[in-house]
Amino acid sequence: MKLIKNNLSEKLIINKYFKKLNLKKRGTFNFENDGAYLDLNNKNYKLTVTTDSISEDIDFLSNDDPTSIAQKITTVNLSDIFAMGALPHSYLLNLHLPNHINENWLNSFSHRLKKIQSKYGFYLLGGDLSKSNKLIVSSTFFGFIKKKLEIYQNKFNLNDDILITGNIGESKIGLEILKKKLLSNTNLKQYFIKKYLYPRPCKLGPLIAHHVNSMKDISDGLIGDLTDMLNDKYGALINVNKIPLSVKTKKILNIKKNYRIENLINAGDDYGLIIISNQKNRNKILSIANKNNIRISCIGKIINEKGIHFDSYLDIKNIKKFDHFC
Amino acid sequence: MKLIKNNLSEKLIINKYFKKLNLKKRGTFNFENDGAYLDLNNKNYKLTVTTDSISEDIDFLSNDDPTSIAQKITTVNLSDIFAMGALPHSYLLNLHLPNHINENWLNSFSHRLKKIQSKYGFYLLGGDLSKSNKLIVSSTFFGFIKKKLEIYQNKFNLNDDILITGNIGESKIGLEILKKKLLSNTNLKQYFIKKYLYPRPCKLGPLIAHHVNSMKDISDGLIGDLTDMLNDKYGALINVNKIPLSVKTKKILNIKKNYRIENLINAGDDYGLIIISNQKNRNKILSIANKNNIRISCIGKIINEKGIHFDSYLDIKNIKKFDHFC
Repeated sequence: MKLIKNNLSEKLIINKYFKKLNLKKRGTFNFENDGAYLDLNNKNYKLTVTTDSISEDIDFLSNDDPTSIAQKITTVNLSDIFAMGALPHSYLLNLHLPNHINENWLNSFSHRLKKIQSKYGFYLLGGDLSKSNKLIVSSTFFGFIKKKLEIYQNKFNLNDDILITGNIGESKIGLEILKKKLLSNTNLKQYFIKKYLYPRPCKLGPLIAHHVNSMKDISDGLIGDLTDMLNDKYGALINVNKIPLSVKTKKILNIKKNYRIENLINAGDDYGLIIISNQKNRNKILSIANKNNIRISCIGKIINEKGIHFDSYLDIKNIKKFDHFC
Repeated sequence: MKLIKNNLSEKLIINKYFKKLNLKKRGTFNFENDGAYLDLNNKNYKLTVTTDSISEDIDFLSNDDPTSIAQKITTVNLSDIFAMGALPHSYLLNLHLPNHINENWLNSFSHRLKKIQSKYGFYLLGGDLSKSNKLIVSSTFFGFIKKKLEIYQNKFNLNDDILITGNIGESKIGLEILKKKLLSNTNLKQYFIKKYLYPRPCKLGPLIAHHVNSMKDISDGLIGDLTDMLNDKYGALINVNKIPLSVKTKKILNIKKNYRIENLINAGDDYGLIIISNQKNRNKILSIANKNNIRISCIGKIINEKGIHFDSYLDIKNIKKFDHFC
């Protein structure tokens, strides 16, 4: 039996905290094999795969609540699955655990995973545990998409709509409040901190997949991710007034005069979707979003002139791009 | 563009060193999407999945050659794929890179991956880069197995043969030479160090899959892995003289009188296979192994008495089990 210094064995961790997440699916071998299998058994679907990691001191702080870390690792991956127009199916977890991780931590972490699994309908297929001096959580997610569906992040046409879901910048405001770079009253404070600690993926992707040309989740900021999507052929014209901000964010912008929309359009961890689609599909997409109570905004269109352009002046030259890798 | 301190951008790393590994397969989107897909398109096969990580100071040293790290991360995963009776198809890489990783390192690492890919026939499906203070490499491997094949690691019967492939303990001797716990002459030294730095997976698994009851790769040592396989119902009787040792290992045991087989049967990182199969299939399995130039040895059988028993005295009570997690 494998022991780590605080007397938690690998077997105990797996049996007590993670076996409940495999939902007794046959292909998991109840975590008693080194591998697992996926029996797709459906000729109309193919399997999507995405993998993402989050690390202590980069994507979260060491004393962040384990429920927040569980929420983040699933959201970063689920939002990629949804952006591909897929539905989540199962996932693998690679946990690199420092010595201070104890049973309370594992209990909260796995309990939150179970809750998220139930919400979106997927299960834990397997994983790997190792020791580390910093906490790193990697995950690989599997999803299903219709056989013929293939959503590139950079294939679209002139005059296509640019739409985004959700609100921009709330997670960034939460992080700046936590870092004490931004002060606020107690109510607003709790609201924004929750947005940062518990980001949600946008499940609209698979519902509109047949009506879009490209989709991507906003993980590195609206401008950063839109720049990634724009190929060498086209640019984007953004209608600044249409960039969606919550009432509470507008309140912050009103109170803090040196804090402006420029600070928010390149903030990371929004996890809404950027959707690029033919104008003729606009009403269909808006209506599906509305039926599902998902805020959606048409913020601009694809133009000939390369780069990102705004219909009113924004002082963006001094904005540093959000960067997970820096 | 994302920059790390030594001026290597994420895009440069992907474009220059990793794009060549995707073999332009359609489902990889040439690494321009956040996700990928696998189009299985074969109703006779299912998809196997396994994931494993290796970490600096646990599985390798920070100044180990990048070609050795590439060999290790592929071998730990490929040997799981082969143990499931599957053939490798593709893989994902999660790289957690410290600042000292430079272009020379990436060049050697990716070049070795390319070589291993060509040897076994698989491609890079995608991955994820992040910064870290220690080097950690995680990988998820996909393989194909026949739809009806399902090899549990712990399902077998009384009197079944226990066979293993390859030689035992060479990697351990290499590590002890590197750590200067064991001294040897130059020729033997280089031989064993290479065994430790460049372990090879055993490809026999899929060739004999229909004739076995259980299979597992030897990653945590012969005794450790066999103990994992034995369920509560049965035990194993091992014929000590049949445990396969190379001529060079026997030389070491002859020279170093305080160094005995007990030091080797629980050494990690052998990466041969433990095979448990009905006696009536023995000749078939041995003949397939011989045809493929793979050393195979029948070292014992499944007995009623629980635990691992030896047909001659071994002083194993003081042997510490090899442990990746400690």
